[in-house]
Amino acid sequence: MTDSPNRRIVLAARPAGAPKPSDFDLTEGPVPAPAEGEFLCRTIYLSLDPYMRGRMNAERSYADPVAIGEVMEGGTVSTVTASRHPDFAVGDMVVGRTGWQDFALSDGAGMRKLDPALAPISTALGVLGMPGMTAYTGLRNIGKPRAGETVVVAAASGAVGAVVGQIAKIEGCRVVGIAGGGDKCAYVVDDLGFDACVNHGQDDFTATLAAACPDGIDVYFENVGGGVFEAVLPLLNPFSRVPVCGLIAHYNATELPAGPNRLPQLMFLILTRRITFRGFIVTDYADQLQEFLDRVGGWLRAGQLTYREDIVDGLEKAPESLIGLLEGRNFGKLLIRVAPDPTG
Amino acid sequence: MTDSPNRRIVLAARPAGAPKPSDFDLTEGPVPAPAEGEFLCRTIYLSLDPYMRGRMNAERSYADPVAIGEVMEGGTVSTVTASRHPDFAVGDMVVGRTGWQDFALSDGAGMRKLDPALAPISTALGVLGMPGMTAYTGLRNIGKPRAGETVVVAAASGAVGAVVGQIAKIEGCRVVGIAGGGDKCAYVVDDLGFDACVNHGQDDFTATLAAACPDGIDVYFENVGGGVFEAVLPLLNPFSRVPVCGLIAHYNATELPAGPNRLPQLMFLILTRRITFRGFIVTDYADQLQEFLDRVGGWLRAGQLTYREDIVDGLEKAPESLIGLLEGRNFGKLLIRVAPDPTG
Repeated sequence: MTDSPNRRIVLAARPAGAPKPSDFDLTEGPVPAPAEGEFLCRTIYLSLDPYMRGRMNAERSYADPVAIGEVMEGGTVSTVTASRHPDFAVGDMVVGRTGWQDFALSDGAGMRKLDPALAPISTALGVLGMPGMTAYTGLRNIGKPRAGETVVVAAASGAVGAVVGQIAKIEGCRVVGIAGGGDKCAYVVDDLGFDACVNHGQDDFTATLAAACPDGIDVYFENVGGGVFEAVLPLLNPFSRVPVCGLIAHYNATELPAGPNRLPQLMFLILTRRITFRGFIVTDYADQLQEFLDRVGGWLRAGQLTYREDIVDGLEKAPESLIGLLEGRNFGKLLIRVAPDPTG
Repeated sequence: MTDSPNRRIVLAARPAGAPKPSDFDLTEGPVPAPAEGEFLCRTIYLSLDPYMRGRMNAERSYADPVAIGEVMEGGTVSTVTASRHPDFAVGDMVVGRTGWQDFALSDGAGMRKLDPALAPISTALGVLGMPGMTAYTGLRNIGKPRAGETVVVAAASGAVGAVVGQIAKIEGCRVVGIAGGGDKCAYVVDDLGFDACVNHGQDDFTATLAAACPDGIDVYFENVGGGVFEAVLPLLNPFSRVPVCGLIAHYNATELPAGPNRLPQLMFLILTRRITFRGFIVTDYADQLQEFLDRVGGWLRAGQLTYREDIVDGLEKAPESLIGLLEGRNFGKLLIRVAPDPTG
């Protein structure tokens, strides 16, 4: 197999509030050998995504938490370095969920082979992976944008938001992004082609957002919550749709915000403006994978859609990179390059 | 035409909080005479409904507010007492929106003729009218109950809730009502056939509701808000649906409740449990009127569905009756009998 050890980052402690480096532990062990029907994966890229914060808590969110001492969960692109499985050969590129470690065994369940000739393999964790499919399915099944409508996207330069906005542009919508910082906003307008992008850190954010949406908001793709959501709320049009995809502003919260209790305010808006709020997770639409790959892959190959990656080298950098992601410090799809990309 | 004066109840002042009798004014004027193409309606029943509270505010809710000095809005069943309209003859029974007054002119717009042989004319304001259609369309288009699911209905003995629950029973659901008081709960179980009904005034309301929903809640038909909603929230199942129809607990509120701010809590539940919240108003589904009349009318005639009316005699009683409705003092569909029912 190989003589290098298998480095693994495990959950050392459940964070109180924002995760700290000491909540993670880097351990080393032997590289496992595949049994009959298994193959060995060598991680090339590890995807870091906001949902990981929820898995560090003791409570169930969508899925069961990661246990203390267990390898952190995560999507990866790997290369097969040894195989006793008839369908996977040494050198194959695969995308799966092998977690924060150098090596992992697989019996093929949940694994999909990648063709590096179709798209860079790293895109299987971004625009053509879980974040891209989250954007595609949330818009298609809940947002349902129609040409001429106004679509507002929070975390617009992020892995999900960038795809949401570009698809909505392709569908003929007016698209307004919200992002943290002038450089991100410039990228969203100049490179992604949104009609406007508002910096949520600026003093007059609420007024600027309202000015950017002169006809109100028909679809709000919710990734963040907090003050961004409160600025969006009064702009929501009758019959608007809100796919609820993420709430990153709250993931590190240890208690509810102070009053007043705005829950009745939200319910009144839902009632009188006949708004639809609906939560979703990409796996709810697993049967739309091929449709997503065909359509978004097609737009990507045709140059109608672009993406940006924020690549950090070294598995040991994963904890601080996830901590930074939760503070909005990444710029584009955040990836850890665990080993050199043989196709890149 | 007639020598009796036309009594009209107008909005005298916009209420601060709960309406007071002095917010209304009873005025008298001449009975108007129909011009060519018009007919004169003599009100028999006036419907009192929670939405009327919103119309008394200065702010637009779904519809524009009633102006100060204007006749209060409301649905009515009337008889035609004079006509210069080719389609409406003296003696016809009609349902429309002629408001809180003895007489009104109409050109036929928004008027529907009633056949007293098919159902008592008062039902055109209740089970076969706006409240019944609200129940039917909210369930059909948003709640989408499936056999075996648990449906919870707030204000279960009210004009809307009673129909929601009975339809859900016909659809094969487990149906749990929530109502204020033991007599209402007994009626909901014994007469309407719900599987259970929980009194929201009892001390152990939250625990009793949870015990009545051992498999969680798949559809919550929201009529009330407040503490009832907070007890329902943790019981909502993954992929549950919440038609938001009314929020009567908040209609008289003058400020938001004290903190903490539970808005992020609701958003997290929507996200992780993939819940759908959707507001609606019966007029959104105006094209389903005939379907509603056929289906609910059919169930009514077949004895599969029952209803209860709370009838108060005298137009002058309308203000105090609406005040009581907002406090939950009615028991069944609240109607003002403005003139004797010639068919009853």
